Amino acid sequence: MGSAVAQCPHGITSHSTGNLGQKKLGYSSRCSKFPCQLDFARFGLLHQGSSAASSSDHSTEFGRRINAVPDMDDMFWDKVPTPLLDMVENPIHLKNLSVQELKELASEIRSELSCIMSEKPNSLKASLAVVELTIAIHHVFHAPVDKILWDVGEQTYAHKILTGRRALMRMMRQKNGLSSFTSRFESEYDSFGTGHGCNSVSAGLGMAIARDIKGKRDRVVTVISNATTLAGQVYEAMSNAGYLDSNMIVILNDSRRSLHPKIEQEPKTSITALSSTLIKIQSSKSFRKFREAAKGITKRIGRGMHELAAKFDEYARGMIGPQGSTLFEELGLYYIGPVDGHNLEDLICVLQQVSSLDSMGPVLIHVITEDNHQDAECNEKIEADNPQEVLSAGYDDSVSSSVQTRTYSDCLVDSLLMEAEKHKDIVLVHAGMEMEPSFQVLQETFADRFFDVGMAEQHAVTFSAGLSRGGLRPFCIIPSTFLQRAYDQVVHDVDRQKIPVRFVITSAGLVGNSGPVYCGAFDVTFMSCLPNMIVMAPSDEDELVDMVATAAQIDDRPVCFRYPRGAIVRTDHFMHPGIPLEIGKGRVLVEGKEVALLGYGAMVQNCLKAQALLSRLGIEVTVADARFCKPLDTELLTLLCENHKFLITVEEGSIGGFASHVAQFIALNGHLDGTVKWRPIVLPDSYIENGLPEEQLARAGLSGHHIAATVLRLLGRVREALLLMC
Amino acid sequence: MGSAVAQCPHGITSHSTGNLGQKKLGYSSRCSKFPCQLDFARFGLLHQGSSAASSSDHSTEFGRRINAVPDMDDMFWDKVPTPLLDMVENPIHLKNLSVQELKELASEIRSELSCIMSEKPNSLKASLAVVELTIAIHHVFHAPVDKILWDVGEQTYAHKILTGRRALMRMMRQKNGLSSFTSRFESEYDSFGTGHGCNSVSAGLGMAIARDIKGKRDRVVTVISNATTLAGQVYEAMSNAGYLDSNMIVILNDSRRSLHPKIEQEPKTSITALSSTLIKIQSSKSFRKFREAAKGITKRIGRGMHELAAKFDEYARGMIGPQGSTLFEELGLYYIGPVDGHNLEDLICVLQQVSSLDSMGPVLIHVITEDNHQDAECNEKIEADNPQEVLSAGYDDSVSSSVQTRTYSDCLVDSLLMEAEKHKDIVLVHAGMEMEPSFQVLQETFADRFFDVGMAEQHAVTFSAGLSRGGLRPFCIIPSTFLQRAYDQVVHDVDRQKIPVRFVITSAGLVGNSGPVYCGAFDVTFMSCLPNMIVMAPSDEDELVDMVATAAQIDDRPVCFRYPRGAIVRTDHFMHPGIPLEIGKGRVLVEGKEVALLGYGAMVQNCLKAQALLSRLGIEVTVADARFCKPLDTELLTLLCENHKFLITVEEGSIGGFASHVAQFIALNGHLDGTVKWRPIVLPDSYIENGLPEEQLARAGLSGHHIAATVLRLLGRVREALLLMC
Repeated sequence: MGSAVAQCPHGITSHSTGNLGQKKLGYSSRCSKFPCQLDFARFGLLHQGSSAASSSDHSTEFGRRINAVPDMDDMFWDKVPTPLLDMVENPIHLKNLSVQELKELASEIRSELSCIMSEKPNSLKASLAVVELTIAIHHVFHAPVDKILWDVGEQTYAHKILTGRRALMRMMRQKNGLSSFTSRFESEYDSFGTGHGCNSVSAGLGMAIARDIKGKRDRVVTVISNATTLAGQVYEAMSNAGYLDSNMIVILNDSRRSLHPKIEQEPKTSITALSSTLIKIQSSKSFRKFREAAKGITKRIGRGMHELAAKFDEYARGMIGPQGSTLFEELGLYYIGPVDGHNLEDLICVLQQVSSLDSMGPVLIHVITEDNHQDAECNEKIEADNPQEVLSAGYDDSVSSSVQTRTYSDCLVDSLLMEAEKHKDIVLVHAGMEMEPSFQVLQETFADRFFDVGMAEQHAVTFSAGLSRGGLRPFCIIPSTFLQRAYDQVVHDVDRQKIPVRFVITSAGLVGNSGPVYCGAFDVTFMSCLPNMIVMAPSDEDELVDMVATAAQIDDRPVCFRYPRGAIVRTDHFMHPGIPLEIGKGRVLVEGKEVALLGYGAMVQNCLKAQALLSRLGIEVTVADARFCKPLDTELLTLLCENHKFLITVEEGSIGGFASHVAQFIALNGHLDGTVKWRPIVLPDSYIENGLPEEQLARAGLSGHHIAATVLRLLGRVREALLLMC
Repeated sequence: MGSAVAQCPHGITSHSTGNLGQKKLGYSSRCSKFPCQLDFARFGLLHQGSSAASSSDHSTEFGRRINAVPDMDDMFWDKVPTPLLDMVENPIHLKNLSVQELKELASEIRSELSCIMSEKPNSLKASLAVVELTIAIHHVFHAPVDKILWDVGEQTYAHKILTGRRALMRMMRQKNGLSSFTSRFESEYDSFGTGHGCNSVSAGLGMAIARDIKGKRDRVVTVISNATTLAGQVYEAMSNAGYLDSNMIVILNDSRRSLHPKIEQEPKTSITALSSTLIKIQSSKSFRKFREAAKGITKRIGRGMHELAAKFDEYARGMIGPQGSTLFEELGLYYIGPVDGHNLEDLICVLQQVSSLDSMGPVLIHVITEDNHQDAECNEKIEADNPQEVLSAGYDDSVSSSVQTRTYSDCLVDSLLMEAEKHKDIVLVHAGMEMEPSFQVLQETFADRFFDVGMAEQHAVTFSAGLSRGGLRPFCIIPSTFLQRAYDQVVHDVDRQKIPVRFVITSAGLVGNSGPVYCGAFDVTFMSCLPNMIVMAPSDEDELVDMVATAAQIDDRPVCFRYPRGAIVRTDHFMHPGIPLEIGKGRVLVEGKEVALLGYGAMVQNCLKAQALLSRLGIEVTVADARFCKPLDTELLTLLCENHKFLITVEEGSIGGFASHVAQFIALNGHLDGTVKWRPIVLPDSYIENGLPEEQLARAGLSGHHIAATVLRLLGRVREALLLMC
C-alpha cells in the first residue's frame, strides 16, 4: 500500500496520513492508510487512458481539495466498529465477500452513513434506501470498466463510500470538498455527472451504443428513481433504448416516495404476492429470445445455480405485476421485477443473471426500496434530527440553514397570499426537482390552485400557458437552473404567443453550497432576448413584494422576475401590501457624481456596500436600481450617462444579460461616443464551485469590495484599490 | 350575412368581395360572400371577451393581410363542384348535416385540399389523413366554446377550411398570408398555437383545469400524432393529466408514419380484428366509473342510439388491443380504440359518447388514419407532383425550393462524409421535428452511426454526451429553434461536464416562409454564455467545411456552429477537404479605413454587399469575418478598434449574442473610452413574420443596403443614406 501512497499524484505522502486511524476504535491496521489512496493512484493511471484526457486539469484541482481534508482525529471518535468496510478501499474488494459478509457490510455502511450524515440528514433516507442495491451492483459489475450511472445525487453516497471517497464524506458540499452529486472530475467510478436528474438513461444508452460500435463488451447500468419518471426525457430515452435494442440495464429504484400524494395513497405493491403468484405467458419475440438465453445458462451452470436461475425466472415472470410494468414493456424495455431492494440474495441473483446474458437488449429491473429500512437506532436518531428531511432536501445549505432567517421565498409566499386576496383567479404552478420548504404554505393554502408537477418543467410552462388561455392568472415558479429545461416552451408556448404567464425564477445567481449544478447564471440572458417578455429583478424584499403585485397586474404579455436563494436584506422586515411598479422604471437610491453604479436585482445591495466603502474614502458615487432589464428605463440611463464619467453595470448573471441590453441602448444612442465610459461587471465565464455565498461572490468578483475596487481603479487610485482587496 | 360584412373590423366591404364567386363553377349563390367573413365578425366579438384582450393589435395586423388577398378569379376556375362545402362558413353549419352529407363534405374537402395544396404537396398527405376526424370533431363539439387543440400544423388544413379561412388557403406561408400552423391571433377557433409539436396536451390540460376552477362546462379536445409521442413533454403532460383527472379528450391521430422504420416494418394493427375479438375484463376503478356512466346513458337514450352505445362499448372493450394502449392506461388516461379514422359513423359515435359523459377524467381515443386514404384521382396527382413529400415537409419554402440550388446542408453532408474518412469514430445524432432531405444521404451512408431520434431533443443531447464519454466523436445536428428544447441538457450534461459534443445548429437565423415558428434567433445568445463552449459560425460554404473539420478535431470541450437555411454563396462551389481553423482567429476580408464592418456567420456576406455599395460612393470600409463568437479574436478586435473610427458588428441573431461579447471585451479594455464608436446590428426585438428571405432580412434591417445606410448615417451623409434605402 505504501507504493500507492508514493504513486499518488496529489501530494499526499505517507507521512501526512500515516498515523491516521491508529487511535480510532473501528479502524484496523489495514485501514490506517488513507482510504482513498488507491483511487488517487488510479487517477494517475487514468491519465494514460484515452477517455480521460480532459480530466487532468480537473484532477489537479481535486488534488488541491484533498489537501484540504481536516485532521481525521476529529472524524471518527464516535464511530462504531466497521471491520468489513475498513477493508474495502474500492469495489474490487467486494468481489470475494460472501452474501453474509455483504449483509454485514451493508449494516456497517448504514451505520457509517447515519453518523456522517447526521449533520446533513436531508439526503440520509435516500442514501440508506439504496445501500444493498449499491453493494449488489458493485459486487456483480466491474466498475470502472463497467459503467454505473446514477441520476439523483443523494442516492450515491454509498457508491461514494465504496469507491474510495469514504474519508471525504464529511466534507460534502463544502468548499474544496466532495460534490454531493457524481462527477466525472471527482472519480473514474462516476461515469457521468448527475444533478438535474433524468439524464442517466440517455447518457447510458450513448455509452452502450459507443461500446457496440467499438466492439467492446463492458456493461452499462443506469439507476433511475421514481421521481425521475416524472421527467419527459426519461421516456424519450427509454423509447429510444427500446428501439436501438442495445444491451443495457436500467434499474428503477422505486422508493415509493412520490410528488403525487394520490399515488402514495394507493396500497403499496406487495412484492411477494406479485412475484410468486402472477404468471403471464409471454409470446413476444424479445421475451422468447431472452428465455432461450436464460435456459441455455441454466443448463450450463451447475446444480447450485439452478436454484438461482429458478428464482430469476420467477422475477422475469412477474411482468404483468405491478402498476407501471407494462409501461416499460411498451417502451421496449424488458421488465423484471419487482425485486425487494433490501434482499441482497435476490438483488445479486437478478443482476448476475442479467449481466451474464448476451444480446438481451435493454432490461428494466424494478427494485422496491424503503426509505425507512434501517437500524432502529439510526432511525430514531434521524427522526429526532429532522422531521422534514424529505421536502427540504437541497435547501439545507449555508444560504438558508438558519431557521430564524426570513428568506426571499418566505416573502414571495406572503406576497402571493396577499395578491390572491385581490385576484381570485391566481393559480400557482411549481416545477423543479424538489420544492422549497417555504412553498408548503402555498400548497396548503391554495390546495386546488397549487400544482406541483415536479421534474416536468416543460409541461409546467405550457400548462401555465393553458391556464392563462383558460382565463386564469398563473404564476409559474421554477428555479433558474431548471427553467433551462423548459426554454423552448417559454419561447414557443408563451412568449411568441404573447400569453400572460408570470414566471417566478427562484434560486437565481449563485447558490452557495449547492454549487455549479444548481447555479442560476443564465436566466437573465436567455429570458431578456425574448421579444414579448418583461424581465425584472427585485433589489430587496420590498421590491420583491411590489414585483409580485406588478406581475399579478400585467395581463397582456408574459413577465418574469428572479430572486436569489437565502436571506432577505433587513432583519426587521415588515410585510407591506405590494404596490404595482411602473413598467420600465428604475430608481436612483444614492446621488453622487463622476461614477454611477447601476445594479440589477440583488446586486444593488452590493453596489450600496461599495458606495459606503467609497464614501469613507471621500468618493461619492451614484447608486441606481434598474429594476427592469426589459424594458429598460431609458430616461434613467440617459440621465446616468449624461451626468457621470463612468457607468458600471452590476449583475449576478452571465454575459448577454442586463449589461448587454444597457450597452446596446447607450451605444445606439451615442452615449458611448465619448459621453460616458461603461464597465460591465457580470458573473465570470466559468462554473463557480461550492462555497459560502460570500466566498462565491468574492470569487465571482461581485462583492462590495470588488465593485469599490473597480471604481478606485477607474479613478486612477490603484493603490487604494489594492489595499481594499487585502 | 350583410350585417356580418358590416361588422367586419378589417375594412373588407361587401363591395370589394360581393361579386366574388359568381362566375365560379362550384360556388353557389350562398358562397358568393367572402367565406371568412363570419370569422372576422367573431373577431369583433372577441374583443369584448376577457381572454382575448391582447389580440386586438394582432387582429389589426391580420386585417392588413386580408386586404392583400389576390383576385379570387384566379383561384377557382379549375375547381370541381363543392356544393356542401360552399354552405359551410363555420363549424356550426356542420351540426345539421347527416352522416351521409358529412361523408360527401369530406370528399369535397379532400378535393379542395388536393387542388389548393397541389403546389405545396408536402403537407397534403397529413392533411388528407385527418379530414374525417376534423369533420367529426367539429360536428360533435362546439368550437370555439369547446377548445380544439392541435399540435402539428400540417394536420390543421381541414380545420382551417372549416373555420372560415377557406379563401385564404392558397396564401399559406406567404407574406401576409395564413400561417401553416394554428395561431390564436389568426382565429378564435385556434385555441393555442402549434408549431414545435407536443404542446397540445399540456396546454389543453391547463384549459381543462381553468374551466373546472371557473365552474364552466366546455370540453377540451387535443389532437396528438404518433410523431409527437416521441417527445418527452407528452408523457409529462399525460402523466399529469392522469393524476389531475380532469375531463379532457386526447385524440391520438396515428397515421402510422414513424421516424422509426422498425416500427413501420411491424405488421400494421388490424383495426377490425382487434376491436371485435379482444375482450379484457376491466377491474380498475376508473374503468368501472366510466362503465357505470356509459350504462346510464345507454338507458336514457332511445333505441336507435342503443346501437351506437353498443358500438362504443366495443371500442372501450378494445383496451388490451394494439401495442401502445396500456402505456396510456399506465399514465392514467382511459384508452378507447383503435377507431378507424376514416369511418365517420364510428368517429362520431365515439366522440358523442365521450363528450356526453361527466367526470370521466382524461380519455385517450386512438384513431388510425391512412396517409393514402384519398380519391384515386388526387392520389395520382400527388404522387406525380412529389414523390418525397413526407421527408421534405417544412423545407419546401422559397429558401430551398430549387432542386438545382446547393444548400449549406448539402455542404455539411459532403464535409461530414469526408471527415468520417479521417475520423472513424465520428457518429451523428439528429433531432428535431423533421429531417432535412439533404441528411438522407448521411442516414444511408452511415447506417449504424446515424441516429435520428426525432422530437426527442433532450435525449439527443445527453445521448450524444454518452456517445462521447464512450470514446466516440459525436456530431449532434439540431435546428436552432429545436435546440431550445434541449437547453438544460446542453448546459448540464455537456458544457458543465466539458464533454466534447459537436453541435451543428441548422436553420439558424431567419427561415423565410417557415416564419417565426421555426426562426432560429436565439442560439448565439444562449450558447455563447456557456463557459466551456466554443461558438463559431461560417460566413460561407468554404468556411462551413473548415468548421466541420475544426469541430471534428476539437476533442477536449464542446463546440457548436450555426448555419442558415438555404443556398450557399457561390454557384460554382467546388468541394475541398476541410482544414481545421485556429481556434479564436477571425480574418480581414477587405481592408479599408474609418469604418470596420465585423460580421458574424452568414452576415459577413451582407457586410461585403454593403462594402461594394459604399465603394461605389467612394467610401472604403474594412470588412472582417469574426468566425468565432467564443473565444473572440481579441487581436483582431484590438486592431479594428485602433484603426477605425467606427466598429459595426453585424449578426443574424438576437441581442445578447456576438455583439455583447464584443462589447464586453472592448469596454473592459478601454477601446470604448473614445477610441472607437461601436454600433451593434442585431435582429430586431420582435418575431418576424413569413416572407421571402430577402424581405425578411430587409424587415430585420440586416440587408447590405441597411448596413451601408448605417455607415452613411454615421459618416454624416444622411441624404445618401436615405437615397440608398429608396
